[in-house]
Amino acid sequence: MSGRSDQLPKRKLPSNEAFIEGLLSGDRTLLSRAITLVESTRSDHQEKAQSIIEACLPHSGNSFRVGITGVPGVGKSTFIEALGKSLIDKGHRLAVLAIDPSSSRSRGSILGDKTRMEKLSTDERAFIRPSAAGNSLGGVARKTRESIILCEAAGFDMIFVETVGVGQSETAVHSMVDFFLLLMPAGAGDELQGIKRGIMEMAEGMVINKADGDNLSHARRARADYQRILHLFSAHPGGWTPQVRHCSALTGDGIEEFWNEVVMEYQKSCSENGYLRLRRDEQAGYWFREHLEDRLHRTFYEHPAVKAEIGIMEKKVLDSELSPFKAAELLFALVQ
Amino acid sequence: MSGRSDQLPKRKLPSNEAFIEGLLSGDRTLLSRAITLVESTRSDHQEKAQSIIEACLPHSGNSFRVGITGVPGVGKSTFIEALGKSLIDKGHRLAVLAIDPSSSRSRGSILGDKTRMEKLSTDERAFIRPSAAGNSLGGVARKTRESIILCEAAGFDMIFVETVGVGQSETAVHSMVDFFLLLMPAGAGDELQGIKRGIMEMAEGMVINKADGDNLSHARRARADYQRILHLFSAHPGGWTPQVRHCSALTGDGIEEFWNEVVMEYQKSCSENGYLRLRRDEQAGYWFREHLEDRLHRTFYEHPAVKAEIGIMEKKVLDSELSPFKAAELLFALVQ
Repeated sequence: MSGRSDQLPKRKLPSNEAFIEGLLSGDRTLLSRAITLVESTRSDHQEKAQSIIEACLPHSGNSFRVGITGVPGVGKSTFIEALGKSLIDKGHRLAVLAIDPSSSRSRGSILGDKTRMEKLSTDERAFIRPSAAGNSLGGVARKTRESIILCEAAGFDMIFVETVGVGQSETAVHSMVDFFLLLMPAGAGDELQGIKRGIMEMAEGMVINKADGDNLSHARRARADYQRILHLFSAHPGGWTPQVRHCSALTGDGIEEFWNEVVMEYQKSCSENGYLRLRRDEQAGYWFREHLEDRLHRTFYEHPAVKAEIGIMEKKVLDSELSPFKAAELLFALVQ
Repeated sequence: MSGRSDQLPKRKLPSNEAFIEGLLSGDRTLLSRAITLVESTRSDHQEKAQSIIEACLPHSGNSFRVGITGVPGVGKSTFIEALGKSLIDKGHRLAVLAIDPSSSRSRGSILGDKTRMEKLSTDERAFIRPSAAGNSLGGVARKTRESIILCEAAGFDMIFVETVGVGQSETAVHSMVDFFLLLMPAGAGDELQGIKRGIMEMAEGMVINKADGDNLSHARRARADYQRILHLFSAHPGGWTPQVRHCSALTGDGIEEFWNEVVMEYQKSCSENGYLRLRRDEQAGYWFREHLEDRLHRTFYEHPAVKAEIGIMEKKVLDSELSPFKAAELLFALVQ
């Protein structure tokens, strides 16, 4: 493999051994730098990242992974702050990996996110890492999945993966978590508008947030409505009945109950019946196939001969000089 | 290329030259046999089919292509029979290519389709060809697209591609036609249930069928409703305003008007502003990329080493012996 390895790194990178040892002892700075390697597009960084991931693999998998999604403004950060605080107070170590599908990497939004989770971001027992999706949602999903492995190896036993529930990122997130949680606003009326049916169908649980003050009666009604809607969907593969609760991330009301009565019940029931094991296996298979597709595409479409000829072939197709089939065959013959 | 060419063909196949000459002179029997070659999975048949298609390509593209979809029972066959009869009476030559995504090839359904279009199927100026999708909707879509080329070379200037509007076949059909028509039942109530919003968004025109007798007032109301719904969608790329009409395929009422006021108006307006040309170009590009993907996948996944190892690698991933990434790399290395 070759790449843009002619650039000198700004700081000298620790050796693979130093990375692995540091990660396994829970060093947060090295965890952060390892995730930066995972996210890098440089091929030498990628190679190093993959070696570290391989070494971490046997020490991963022991966390409970929760995907949290909801439209902008629903209060995800406040919810995660409140729930996260209660979990670390119980002795858990929590990593929050946030995917922002809309923005490119910008210091502004990253700092913004950190500030919104004030208590968690200054707590030793929590690790918060936002990632901008930039151009490639598929790419950031793969990187998030690899970051989960690193966080688990570093001793985090509770992983939250946060996304904005309006894009295609939810399917990718669903394929890396044990429990998928949809946060909904309490306001009556068009609250379903921003959320696609497909996203609701993936949810193991829904929480109506901001159920406080005047909103409480709205939230109660919405909860009943959503519970009815969830019943219309096809049966959950783990035999689970998706649950709806309401809470106030602001006052903390309902958050503890949701965690105990829904998430913990789910974990218990789906561990006992083997579904969680099965789901992780299916997810591993899914990522294996995704990597294969990715590899296959990069090898072909980034081949110099293909890059040079694909535009010419496409033009011949548009001009009816070649059939799409024949043009594809000719292009393919260049790399054989 | 090699394949199951050890089987002797039941009848001796004409030479490529005989096929091409016959097609260009409008020989329906040879057209039918050429489509059978296109649909065959045998590699020698495929090779022959591709040579014939290449030779037909310069003689193709001169038809108007209409995709017709609608849920089962909406009366597609009766509608096509009535509209088709009126078109051939005006001097057109009409080919109807029907895709059935649900059934595997069965003599029963094919005969059934033919019988339902009694007048067309016995008329020299029409050619009706049903294709069962079997396991691969993508495969049958590609074959339908190639069959269009053969039909055009054989002098058919009007092509209908018919599908059942419940599956994923609509996107594929949309990518091969000039005008996409959605047939809807007149019954009030849940008529939108079976049809996805995405399918409605692709339609250049909608026809409420069975607008006769007691249904007429329902149909009028449904027409106004749908016209309102269509206005909510984003603007048509050809500057066209999708139209809703009602008709009775049984009595023939409204069919002529629909064709003249909607389809012909569309053709006129979108030829003049260049959209139809642009759409065909985009479609050719789409099929070029589809063929490339198909070729890439077949070459990799049908490689003997990959076939032998992919299951073993996947198991190692599931057993956490290898990361999905590493397993994909190792598998990929086998074919390099």
